[in-house]
Amino acid sequence: MHVNGHPYRTIWWNDDIVRIIDQRMLPHEFVIEDIVTAEQMATAIRDMHVRGAPLVGVAGGCGVALAVARGGSDGRIDKVADDAAVMLKSTRPTAVNLAWAVDQVVASVHESRDGGAKLRAARTTSERLIEDEVRRSARLGEVGAPLIEKIGAEKGGEPVNILTHCNAGWLATVDIGLATAPIYTAFDRGVLIHVWVDETRPRNQGARLTAWELGGHGVPHTVIADNLAGHLMQRGDVDVVIVGTDRTTWRGDVVNKVGTYQKALAALDNGVPFYVAVPSSSIDWTTGDGRDVPIESRGADEVRFVRGTSNGATIDVLVPPADSPAANYAFDVTPSRLVTGLITERGICAASESGIAELFPEMRQTA
Amino acid sequence: MHVNGHPYRTIWWNDDIVRIIDQRMLPHEFVIEDIVTAEQMATAIRDMHVRGAPLVGVAGGCGVALAVARGGSDGRIDKVADDAAVMLKSTRPTAVNLAWAVDQVVASVHESRDGGAKLRAARTTSERLIEDEVRRSARLGEVGAPLIEKIGAEKGGEPVNILTHCNAGWLATVDIGLATAPIYTAFDRGVLIHVWVDETRPRNQGARLTAWELGGHGVPHTVIADNLAGHLMQRGDVDVVIVGTDRTTWRGDVVNKVGTYQKALAALDNGVPFYVAVPSSSIDWTTGDGRDVPIESRGADEVRFVRGTSNGATIDVLVPPADSPAANYAFDVTPSRLVTGLITERGICAASESGIAELFPEMRQTA
Repeated sequence: MHVNGHPYRTIWWNDDIVRIIDQRMLPHEFVIEDIVTAEQMATAIRDMHVRGAPLVGVAGGCGVALAVARGGSDGRIDKVADDAAVMLKSTRPTAVNLAWAVDQVVASVHESRDGGAKLRAARTTSERLIEDEVRRSARLGEVGAPLIEKIGAEKGGEPVNILTHCNAGWLATVDIGLATAPIYTAFDRGVLIHVWVDETRPRNQGARLTAWELGGHGVPHTVIADNLAGHLMQRGDVDVVIVGTDRTTWRGDVVNKVGTYQKALAALDNGVPFYVAVPSSSIDWTTGDGRDVPIESRGADEVRFVRGTSNGATIDVLVPPADSPAANYAFDVTPSRLVTGLITERGICAASESGIAELFPEMRQTA
Repeated sequence: MHVNGHPYRTIWWNDDIVRIIDQRMLPHEFVIEDIVTAEQMATAIRDMHVRGAPLVGVAGGCGVALAVARGGSDGRIDKVADDAAVMLKSTRPTAVNLAWAVDQVVASVHESRDGGAKLRAARTTSERLIEDEVRRSARLGEVGAPLIEKIGAEKGGEPVNILTHCNAGWLATVDIGLATAPIYTAFDRGVLIHVWVDETRPRNQGARLTAWELGGHGVPHTVIADNLAGHLMQRGDVDVVIVGTDRTTWRGDVVNKVGTYQKALAALDNGVPFYVAVPSSSIDWTTGDGRDVPIESRGADEVRFVRGTSNGATIDVLVPPADSPAANYAFDVTPSRLVTGLITERGICAASESGIAELFPEMRQTA
């Protein structure tokens, strides 16, 4: 996607280091960060320089490759990869992509015969993870864009109003995004589009990241408080909701950024279709009931402090009284009954065991 | 209620001036403001030093009394009161309570015979408005507290978890509040209570005001992002929701701070009772369908900027990109079908035409 007219991805190899966009500084500063070691990558993941399930996965995989590249003698490489994997996976325990991507790089190391081959395998596998993610996003765009094109045709030239929550945008992936993939694809094909961007408290990924990337690509959009989504649907001002997911169970329960569940309830109550963009890497083939997914509890200060800019400086301001505690669960579970459909790289399916199994028959066995 | 161990109301006469708490500075500064003239009171209302429908009404009434007290010769007093009324009512044109309270003080002036009597009438009527508001809140507390006491008894000593939205607290009234009246009353009777405080974007009245006043009275509470309410209900961590209302129709549709509707949907989906504290002054006897109530659209900067404190200074920070627009409807409509009951000064009733008419039979005619 474009930033100030230049094409960027969120993560890339540059010689033997990895570069990322430090997303903590967005939207007011655009900072590229050099990641040289696996420890730096763990910090970048834990402290959310990079975030979004697919990007976190790719970053974790690159982290293992960095560990191996820096890792000392031939005989120790497998152990270096294993240790890096444990460290990297512990940074975001809810992210199923992270473990999945990290394990792929580790496996490629274990399967290679000698030191040189192990090094090359780690690097190559991490690069393949990057390209796979790009292809997956492009495919979600191909699959999901017709939903928007159809609404656009029905509205006869009026803009299609799409509501999204959090950032399942290109900043959450490597390029083009998940929930945003159908949006960018339809937009690039000439459909008139307007996006309602939930600011997505407490971390404001919508206001800070989604608004920034939509603006960078020229997509008309309006930032709203999370509280406003229901009212907009009551007014008839939302044609479709498209969100991403951190993990979707094989029965179709959607674990996503906290607040998604409330939007899904409002969508159902107002007859607004509610779609989830789900790359197959985010389907949890071992969990059926979303209530069994552990929900990450994060620090209270993410709620208590708000980051913004004042006179050109980035500042965190405290909003509630200094002695008021805050709670901060990062995700919630949208039960499958509230979901109109899942947009996957193999097509759109019902959010149900049978709907998912029909598109991914080879995974049925593992469930 | 108590602030730093001292009892306070939000507004009171002190000799011949009115004192208010300047709520713009909360929670980080506690400022008492002297209001000497009607013009100052108009500014305090317009710029939201005082807010909340009941408090705004009382403040307007006191403003007329101030105008009369400063108003010059006997023959001019009626005109002084009339002019002050016009000015004060124009500060918040949609606030029904404001016109209602202002008109009462003006009428008492007109009905009095001579200058001395007119002065005394204005002062006395404004004082009566204050005491009426205190009594109304106390009555809501009496009526609503048993709901909480019953849950407390059922939980056998575990704290009752109450969720509230926005500030329908004592800061919105003169004392004890609306949605908070049952909470403070039950708390003072010894019920173990914990309150989940929706921060209430975009203006953060929950995080800034409700958290502050609960803390001041010693009520355990936790601030949450508005997005978290649904998840807490899914976890079984909310026993009851109690909110206020800006206007409730005679059929029981509840117009309240934007976001209320989404909480009500989540409450219904999880079997959590959802109550609305409704003083009869907030029932709209001329409107049946909540969708007919005009919804105020406010400035985008209330969404784009967040006020907080940093190093002791109060600062507004910009969160989204500088060129991203924002939308800001201040209220939404919770349909009566989502409301478990209305807590009124005459008792608890169903949110329905018959439920309301049973408690207020004398108003039925006007519907």
